[in-house]
Amino acid sequence: MKIGIIGLGLMGGSLALDLTRLGYEVIGVSRQLSTCNIAFDRAIVSRASVDLEILAQTDLIFICTPIASILPTLERLIKYLPPHVVITDVGSVKGSIVPQATELWSNFVGSHPMAGTANQGIEAVESNLFKNAPCVITPLENTPEKNVEIVKKIWQEVGCKIYMSSPETHDRAVAWISHLPVMISANLINSCVNHENQEVVNLAKNLASSGFKDTSRVGGGNPELGLMMAQYNKAQLLNSLKEYQQNLSSIIEDIEQEKWSILEDILNKTQQERPNFLC
Amino acid sequence: MKIGIIGLGLMGGSLALDLTRLGYEVIGVSRQLSTCNIAFDRAIVSRASVDLEILAQTDLIFICTPIASILPTLERLIKYLPPHVVITDVGSVKGSIVPQATELWSNFVGSHPMAGTANQGIEAVESNLFKNAPCVITPLENTPEKNVEIVKKIWQEVGCKIYMSSPETHDRAVAWISHLPVMISANLINSCVNHENQEVVNLAKNLASSGFKDTSRVGGGNPELGLMMAQYNKAQLLNSLKEYQQNLSSIIEDIEQEKWSILEDILNKTQQERPNFLC
Repeated sequence: MKIGIIGLGLMGGSLALDLTRLGYEVIGVSRQLSTCNIAFDRAIVSRASVDLEILAQTDLIFICTPIASILPTLERLIKYLPPHVVITDVGSVKGSIVPQATELWSNFVGSHPMAGTANQGIEAVESNLFKNAPCVITPLENTPEKNVEIVKKIWQEVGCKIYMSSPETHDRAVAWISHLPVMISANLINSCVNHENQEVVNLAKNLASSGFKDTSRVGGGNPELGLMMAQYNKAQLLNSLKEYQQNLSSIIEDIEQEKWSILEDILNKTQQERPNFLC
Repeated sequence: MKIGIIGLGLMGGSLALDLTRLGYEVIGVSRQLSTCNIAFDRAIVSRASVDLEILAQTDLIFICTPIASILPTLERLIKYLPPHVVITDVGSVKGSIVPQATELWSNFVGSHPMAGTANQGIEAVESNLFKNAPCVITPLENTPEKNVEIVKKIWQEVGCKIYMSSPETHDRAVAWISHLPVMISANLINSCVNHENQEVVNLAKNLASSGFKDTSRVGGGNPELGLMMAQYNKAQLLNSLKEYQQNLSSIIEDIEQEKWSILEDILNKTQQERPNFLC
């Protein structure tokens, strides 16, 4: 099987490396000629080009570009392909990608491998990036089962644990555990620095330690990524944010009214439940 | 100088150990006879007793009990002491302690060393626990300067970086960087598990990774500690929670109205500002 990979950054490059080592013929596409050369020189791919046409002879293509480029890339790509080619992506939202992509190309299957490091680009490529990472595959009702199996098999071969869900359920789940945390974490930093009493802010900066550090980490991360989450998963993120805010109002009320046993029950529950998210 | 330490857990025991090694005569008090014996056997203290009266001959006393016990302990303690003895504490809130303690004992000076590990009790005691830790000293206007200097000197000797502030400014600062993070982090876990769609919750649990892990850490911690923060720093925590919530409403509005450049500005700012809290 010949596999095409578009986008040779951390995700696409690492996937290409693993698949090449597994014996597949991997053909890479990058907008940057220099990236193509590095990918070839380091045996990450068998061949690479800046031109999508190089993928005309492949059987399966992974679009590993940033979310905003997935649909435009697909549109430019399909004119070079025979209709049997299966195409998938690695985008972190699915509801705003999969239905439109499937309309453009009926052999499209959405997937989202949840792997990564803090680094970007071909220099960040590493082998076994996907080992033990969850990967969600999000077929529609009309997605051919054999295409799902092809995509699933490849993700399993690079070590992913596979979960199946609808694009909507995927987007709701990642809103809760990935996109909402970014917003509440950013709002923590933002609220601290915007507080009008500078003496308090200065002392707070000096006293902040591991608790603040961990709670603020994802909110102090890549702004483009946070913005993209909000843009591409707007509806589900808003639902989570509003539920979160309603629950925060209850906590504020409990503290105001000194309903200590209710607050204690909540804190006991959160202590018990957190490990269930970290299996 | 003879130093008394009441409460031989992680904080009091570690302080006793450092002060003993620095050459001070350290006398410990614990409610548990077994703790007294361990502290003596391990040369953490010179003498130890379950009886506060043993501290009658000391010059400086650290109350290292949980917050709820600080004032009751002080009340029972002072009947054994000559009036010149300086007393301090290590409580993580100051506004609900320092004024009352100073009324009971005019030579009281509030302090709050911000050190700790996840462990508790005398078995958790370690040397150099306070090295490079911030320690806030919170005198009132009528607190004698020489007492402040005595307390400051000892904290500096065990390695603390000293900050001076009023009890109120202290409580406002720790509300922002310590108590608010606990509540918003607990509310993240609570909101996720309370979400009514179990298919979404189950997928969320399977997909949660380092972002969720870090953002939820302090909210999944010791429930008693979280409850205590709310009880003893109620007013300042509520102020921070309400400012936080107001700012979160703005973010929700920005996302709803697709004011992407405003959201981008916020995320750029939080990325820039976070390092200022981690010096």
